[in-house]
Amino acid sequence: MSVGLSNKEIGLELHKWATDLFPITRSLTGPGVRETFRYLKKIIPELSIFSVPSGKKVFDWTVPKEWIIREAYIANKDNVKIIDIKNNNLHVVGYSEPINKRMNLEELNPFLHSIPDLPNAIPYVTSFYNESWGFCISEKQRMQLKDEEYHVYIDSELIDGVLNYGELIIKGQTDKEILLSTYICHPSMANNELSGPVVTTAIARWLKTLEKRKYTYRIIFVPETIGSIVYINENFKNLKKATIAGFQITCIGDDRVYSFLPSRLGNTLSDKAAEHVLKHLAPGYKKYSFLERGSDERQFCSPGVDLPIASVMRSKYGEYPEYHTSLDNLDFVTPSGLAGGFNILKNIIELIENNCKPVCLHTCEPQLGKRGLYPNVSKLGSVNDSVKKMMNLIAYSDGNLSLLEIAEIIDVPMWELVQVFRVLKKHTILSNN
Amino acid sequence: MSVGLSNKEIGLELHKWATDLFPITRSLTGPGVRETFRYLKKIIPELSIFSVPSGKKVFDWTVPKEWIIREAYIANKDNVKIIDIKNNNLHVVGYSEPINKRMNLEELNPFLHSIPDLPNAIPYVTSFYNESWGFCISEKQRMQLKDEEYHVYIDSELIDGVLNYGELIIKGQTDKEILLSTYICHPSMANNELSGPVVTTAIARWLKTLEKRKYTYRIIFVPETIGSIVYINENFKNLKKATIAGFQITCIGDDRVYSFLPSRLGNTLSDKAAEHVLKHLAPGYKKYSFLERGSDERQFCSPGVDLPIASVMRSKYGEYPEYHTSLDNLDFVTPSGLAGGFNILKNIIELIENNCKPVCLHTCEPQLGKRGLYPNVSKLGSVNDSVKKMMNLIAYSDGNLSLLEIAEIIDVPMWELVQVFRVLKKHTILSNN
Amino acid sequence: MSVGLSNKEIGLELHKWATDLFPITRSLTGPGVRETFRYLKKIIPELSIFSVPSGKKVFDWTVPKEWIIREAYIANKDNVKIIDIKNNNLHVVGYSEPINKRMNLEELNPFLHSIPDLPNAIPYVTSFYNESWGFCISEKQRMQLKDEEYHVYIDSELIDGVLNYGELIIKGQTDKEILLSTYICHPSMANNELSGPVVTTAIARWLKTLEKRKYTYRIIFVPETIGSIVYINENFKNLKKATIAGFQITCIGDDRVYSFLPSRLGNTLSDKAAEHVLKHLAPGYKKYSFLERGSDERQFCSPGVDLPIASVMRSKYGEYPEYHTSLDNLDFVTPSGLAGGFNILKNIIELIENNCKPVCLHTCEPQLGKRGLYPNVSKLGSVNDSVKKMMNLIAYSDGNLSLLEIAEIIDVPMWELVQVFRVLKKHTILSNN
Repeated sequence: MSVGLSNKEIGLELHKWATDLFPITRSLTGPGVRETFRYLKKIIPELSIFSVPSGKKVFDWTVPKEWIIREAYIANKDNVKIIDIKNNNLHVVGYSEPINKRMNLEELNPFLHSIPDLPNAIPYVTSFYNESWGFCISEKQRMQLKDEEYHVYIDSELIDGVLNYGELIIKGQTDKEILLSTYICHPSMANNELSGPVVTTAIARWLKTLEKRKYTYRIIFVPETIGSIVYINENFKNLKKATIAGFQITCIGDDRVYSFLPSRLGNTLSDKAAEHVLKHLAPGYKKYSFLERGSDERQFCSPGVDLPIASVMRSKYGEYPEYHTSLDNLDFVTPSGLAGGFNILKNIIELIENNCKPVCLHTCEPQLGKRGLYPNVSKLGSVNDSVKKMMNLIAYSDGNLSLLEIAEIIDVPMWELVQVFRVLKKHTILSNN
Repeated sequence: MSVGLSNKEIGLELHKWATDLFPITRSLTGPGVRETFRYLKKIIPELSIFSVPSGKKVFDWTVPKEWIIREAYIANKDNVKIIDIKNNNLHVVGYSEPINKRMNLEELNPFLHSIPDLPNAIPYVTSFYNESWGFCISEKQRMQLKDEEYHVYIDSELIDGVLNYGELIIKGQTDKEILLSTYICHPSMANNELSGPVVTTAIARWLKTLEKRKYTYRIIFVPETIGSIVYINENFKNLKKATIAGFQITCIGDDRVYSFLPSRLGNTLSDKAAEHVLKHLAPGYKKYSFLERGSDERQFCSPGVDLPIASVMRSKYGEYPEYHTSLDNLDFVTPSGLAGGFNILKNIIELIENNCKPVCLHTCEPQLGKRGLYPNVSKLGSVNDSVKKMMNLIAYSDGNLSLLEIAEIIDVPMWELVQVFRVLKKHTILSNN
Repeated sequence: MSVGLSNKEIGLELHKWATDLFPITRSLTGPGVRETFRYLKKIIPELSIFSVPSGKKVFDWTVPKEWIIREAYIANKDNVKIIDIKNNNLHVVGYSEPINKRMNLEELNPFLHSIPDLPNAIPYVTSFYNESWGFCISEKQRMQLKDEEYHVYIDSELIDGVLNYGELIIKGQTDKEILLSTYICHPSMANNELSGPVVTTAIARWLKTLEKRKYTYRIIFVPETIGSIVYINENFKNLKKATIAGFQITCIGDDRVYSFLPSRLGNTLSDKAAEHVLKHLAPGYKKYSFLERGSDERQFCSPGVDLPIASVMRSKYGEYPEYHTSLDNLDFVTPSGLAGGFNILKNIIELIENNCKPVCLHTCEPQLGKRGLYPNVSKLGSVNDSVKKMMNLIAYSDGNLSLLEIAEIIDVPMWELVQVFRVLKKHTILSNN
């Protein structure tokens, strides 16, 4: 079992993936999403890509048209392109309709978005469910715009296409499933987007290498909100029946503090496993309330769906100044940040895999001494912490408490008890209920 | 819905009623009680007055004789009436037997009651269940009494009469009832007596004006202790079957801090509703323990009766220096004090009327945007508090949680959620489970 | 009922017993244990002594051989016995095998045990389940040993004999049992050994004097660990069926702070009764966690056995510097220390005996006044604490709550409520559910 948090190689590799994926112009739908999937399939070839046609009704929603964006720029009176998505795909408001018009600054202003408080940041703005258009620029650039005639040009199309999502099922020994969900619908932003699919892909690759898995893993890459709604619509019965735990994977690549957002009721195995790992490996992590939710746990934890989905993050969406701007970039997301996020999730999954309800096979304490597990000469202070841990584990192995619950009672990391449990199982002192 | 606390007109009107009722010589039984009812019936004509004969056994108790008090005075050697109930009906000990005797100060002293620590206050003393007599005077006056012969005269009678109580049933859409109980057995005292029947009468009048009421209201005016015991005796089955909430209304007219005394188990709808309203409208209210009870919740919450009755008060009986003295007067009880008490109770009742268990009619989040309930252009900080409140309400509308419980989770006043619920019901997003 | 903590006579008597028992060379088995029982039987003649043969399998354990120790000394080159168990029976490692050998200091050193931090203390060391030998000496003496030839002599024998334990059943009105367990396997140490059997014996003698007992008492004196395992093995069904509470009695004779170690789940009647008594009679007592257990509650509370056994102690084993050394002597254990321990346990047992679920025989409050239990003249401050306690007891006597639970709610010692309950029972106001 891994218990460390940083790992130089994995960090560098994940950062490389994020760097490769960064320039792609993703949106809810469209070629950028498919290009992203092509890249990820090189790492996890078993990833299946599904298509759902535009216009399809899913619960209260409709699958949106596909957005094709070919060109988008604003040229000044000298025909110099002062804003161009070729430089940064955040420049165009997501799902902008086509336009080709000359207008002066006063006419243009309502269609420009900038952030006065962050003069160097290009904001990220979308208009998914309302036909509109617009450009995003830094406040600094905006201040320099002269009152002249501009040529505003967007070559885009909203077509009846498809919404794509990716799914990877990794079979385990049982049909009980762990759901891992991340999203692939944001253009060039690193923490609030790429850290999610990149860490999820690394987790998928690692899970495949395991000799055996108790649980089946359902790993999905969906456009946020509409994608998870589509996915729940198509897999409702199975999700409800099989899911024993799961995590929304997002904002997990920067170097700041770890954070946690619980499931709606806050008392699922996912919550307990994640908080146990964070408590021991990332003490001081920030705990948010479910009232501060904002990603696909909104769907997974909605009434009637109620899946046990929690979120383990680093800097949470909406809570860091770079969020949803061009400053959420590959400097903010780092190799060590990604490696830390990967390892926390890996530890949580290992914890769930290793959790069980141990039961003592003996009435009264077993005699550890005759098995060489206890010092035979009793003198002051001779029972060390390791023996105490063993005896405490035995004392609580009543078949009702899980290793995780016992670890909380004894106040040791569960992975330490897993080691002790294996020794005691070998000595036929404990068994797995 | 009302959410404010002060209301000048209602305050002045209630204070007027209290002023009119103040001079009446009420006791457990007798003409003073009936005169009080005659006054209240002018405001709420549907109030029914019931009589129970003296000597009737009710549970462990016996309905007492009716006490008629005609005259009571102490005259000095010059035949000047130095103490006379014509000046203040607190001067005579309640249920005093008749006496007509001359005695010196030493003989008289054991029958005089005063409060050394409050030299200007006439104490309120009763001897309901033991034949005796006595006079109550201020310590100041007592200090001035000379050792001379006094003429002590009480013209009273204990007759086989009746105990009276008032009852007003205001029908609602269901048979489920809310019980409001107050008492009418104290002579000239304002907070610990008149604030109760006066506010209760105003609540009754307001309830009658409502277009519709979910619940039926059972509003009773009884002499304290024996009256509630009689009432429980006569209505036991119905009270047990129908009562879903209720309040003891007493000490609710002064201008000091609000206070709360829970039901015996402290976890009824009455407790939760009252504390929610107090938390939001009267933060800093004082919470008492049920161990500090002292009014008719003693009967309503007794083992086997166990009605969900809590007490919302301002200065609680026994806890303010003016309590049970002539200082508990119409200066201590004020128009704004009465209006505040009325409005707190009104808000609590409205809260119970509006409470329900909302259930979301959609799987996954409903699409608020297409209904104009959500901003379609997503940019930084665009989701405001009002939209958040809406989404949080939806997220917890699982059919198990009540609006009140959701309001506690989201930490907003329930009346705000009621407004949101109505909007969402209109849009067929939420329904009433 | 007793509620005090100190009692000079009982303290002196118990200290005398401890003094008499102190020099006996006890071990898990052997003549020292039997000599101890002979002494205790003089005080409680009904104590039955049982024998279990060496080699018998009990659960995961085997009854050890009997250890006979006749002589054990180290003589110096001048043939002077510098260490001799005739001076202190702690000098020889418990269960040492025989040896008769000359060796120099270097050869001897690995077989010597001392405590550098406590230079005057002879440590207590055993080697119960591993054949070995050794001597225990003070660090001070060890420092003075010269490098010369020593004659090391132990005349001991490990024979197929028996393990002895004592059992005393004191019948009560019901078959429900309270288990009291203590151990008799340590040589000359006073708190961590003799305080246990001495206080337990005094409790047994006191229980016999009671006119009636609701519960049957099962009082056992066993060698620690193996003895309780043997006892559980032989009495499993009855213990599981009958035991409603119980205590491990150890380390209960010194004058320092009281302490408490809960049962495994911490919520049994034993836990609640003990903590209630300690809270009121020994405020400031130290509460340990079950993780800090170390005596026979390890067996009684093991999974599948799960008896409701808690430990009430003074200085807990392992937590005081004198523990398991010659400093745990009859100066450390005092008459007042023993009397305090005895009285705490006595109060706990009385509490369990007197606990019941009172139920009020009246609907609404009973009229206390007509029974002379309530002041008839009502004036300010006239309801005193004693009347309040009575009314509070009645208010919670719903047949669901026990006297102990009501005492916790009202926050008074349960023994005060027992007195009130008896008065109210006499007046047919309360009954015993």
